[in-house]
Amino acid sequence: MTAATVSWMSGIEHPAPEFERLARLRQDSLVKPRGALGKLEDIACWFAARQERTIPQALVPAITVFAADHGVARHGVSAFPQSVTLHMVRGLTDGIAAINVLARAIEARFTIVDAGVAEPCPFDGVRSERIGPGTADLLHSPAMTEAQAFRSLAIGAQYAREAIASGCNLLIAGEIGIANTTSAACLVSALLDVAPEYIVGRGSGIDDETHARKLEVVRTALARAGSRVTPIEALREFGGFEIGAMAGFYLEAARRRTPVLLDGFISTAAALVGCGLDPGLRDWLLASHLSAERGHASVLQRLGLRPLVELDMRLGEGTGAAAVVPLLQNALKLHAEMATFADSGVPDKQ
Amino acid sequence: MTAATVSWMSGIEHPAPEFERLARLRQDSLVKPRGALGKLEDIACWFAARQERTIPQALVPAITVFAADHGVARHGVSAFPQSVTLHMVRGLTDGIAAINVLARAIEARFTIVDAGVAEPCPFDGVRSERIGPGTADLLHSPAMTEAQAFRSLAIGAQYAREAIASGCNLLIAGEIGIANTTSAACLVSALLDVAPEYIVGRGSGIDDETHARKLEVVRTALARAGSRVTPIEALREFGGFEIGAMAGFYLEAARRRTPVLLDGFISTAAALVGCGLDPGLRDWLLASHLSAERGHASVLQRLGLRPLVELDMRLGEGTGAAAVVPLLQNALKLHAEMATFADSGVPDKQ
Repeated sequence: MTAATVSWMSGIEHPAPEFERLARLRQDSLVKPRGALGKLEDIACWFAARQERTIPQALVPAITVFAADHGVARHGVSAFPQSVTLHMVRGLTDGIAAINVLARAIEARFTIVDAGVAEPCPFDGVRSERIGPGTADLLHSPAMTEAQAFRSLAIGAQYAREAIASGCNLLIAGEIGIANTTSAACLVSALLDVAPEYIVGRGSGIDDETHARKLEVVRTALARAGSRVTPIEALREFGGFEIGAMAGFYLEAARRRTPVLLDGFISTAAALVGCGLDPGLRDWLLASHLSAERGHASVLQRLGLRPLVELDMRLGEGTGAAAVVPLLQNALKLHAEMATFADSGVPDKQ
Repeated sequence: MTAATVSWMSGIEHPAPEFERLARLRQDSLVKPRGALGKLEDIACWFAARQERTIPQALVPAITVFAADHGVARHGVSAFPQSVTLHMVRGLTDGIAAINVLARAIEARFTIVDAGVAEPCPFDGVRSERIGPGTADLLHSPAMTEAQAFRSLAIGAQYAREAIASGCNLLIAGEIGIANTTSAACLVSALLDVAPEYIVGRGSGIDDETHARKLEVVRTALARAGSRVTPIEALREFGGFEIGAMAGFYLEAARRRTPVLLDGFISTAAALVGCGLDPGLRDWLLASHLSAERGHASVLQRLGLRPLVELDMRLGEGTGAAAVVPLLQNALKLHAEMATFADSGVPDKQ
């Protein structure tokens, strides 16, 4: 990490542990056995420390979906052709994809950003921030230039600022990008220094032959890029535009003291890049679910994050994060609306 | 099980597998990789088979909380005094308990039934179905008479009918009853034929000394009742009124082709009694969460049920079930509202 990066990204503060303590005291006073709400109690205390309120306010979620293409798709590492990225962006503008359904259900602010789909997206409702027509092919060259890598971070940061300015207090990033589990597998293998066979998964549902090809592509790319890459180098080497944008989105959210709810493998890989740039990001991340994608557990473990649920999801788009928002909202409602033993007249423990 | 019991309880039909197949076909046609929504896909197909619709309707949940006292509470097996049962019933009528908060959040029909609290509940909004002033002390005698056991089943059935008649299509039972994890541990140990040390847990949060006493109470009660008890005998021997009511509630729901969402240890123990009376009940049960209470996993395993989430909850009242209802609703929304590849023009797999 260069000094310039540090200064650009600096400024993430710690949460406020005194509010976590006050929230725990409140939890222990509510009419239930101590700890009986399990993880729902922890969630309320976690938000207390970050909102700096003993009783956190209801969550106002923003979902920003970053779309981009990957040059490596040409090697047939996905079950779907590259053109599906563009079609899925149209699907999102039409409101018919999984993330649309969940965004409506949780009443999230919803934004779609073209960070570099192979062809421009001519659909109403897509914010154009095209860094290029997809990344370069990571098998043979770095996926991005360094300038593109920084640009992707900056784009993400811009959309985090916008979501926070509009009143959102929980930030979710989603992604669309055929072949992006290949990019993410490279990033994770390189940054965790773990052999790719422990990381490369089935992505969109590839067969054994495609999986073997994908693994070989990742191995070759890692050998090409060399070992001991920094987070920025890893992002430049392996892409993609949307992953860099997610990392920048998360860093800016944390810098503005706003909690981030992670999604699955791609999202967590972006968080790994972000934590490499500023370890302070870690304190602002909540893991929503453990996805079915192979490498996800390893990244969560390295980040020291425990996922809230395990639903065998592997869709991306931000769907796993959106799916657990009602659990978070209800954790906060319980914290705010239950009475204490003192108020209710219920006798406490013998 | 006597012939009379079989006839009284008969009539549970199977779900409709053809609708599960049609729902799976629909899932496989939606704009996402097949299986990428994981357990959310299974949930949609599960409800399809039970509602007999390829696209199941939104869930209209009913939560019925059965309250009762247990004679065994006099042996100090809980962290709370017996009087807390009555106080918690008042808390529920005041709307300040955990289950009230969650019932409001999921817009559930909410009913509180006094199935036999030690003292009558003089609160507006409590339906009185008192079988007695708490059960007898299971350490020294059967907790109920056979007539009381059948009465508890009948009360539960009555409230299931009422909830279904009012338009609810997802039935949740909760419970309030100091010392009821002791009753449930006896029931489960006896019906699973598993040693109580693998079943008896910390309930409301008891210390080591209380846990040792609780374990000894359960062992003694099991020895008194003898081995090889039938489900009805187990219910009579160990109680409680609320557990019998939950079993009857579940059986009647299944008989009326209405899905049941189980809560934690007590709820699942009641389902075990119900499945002993009619194994057909099993097909109508969905497990919401794995609770932190020791014996819960064993009962779920015996029933062949996989819990949807694991939140370390151990509160009862129906809270674990209510907490996951938004996940179920969103699974059904995804199933209903996402577009197919054919409709959307998105290319399917290569």
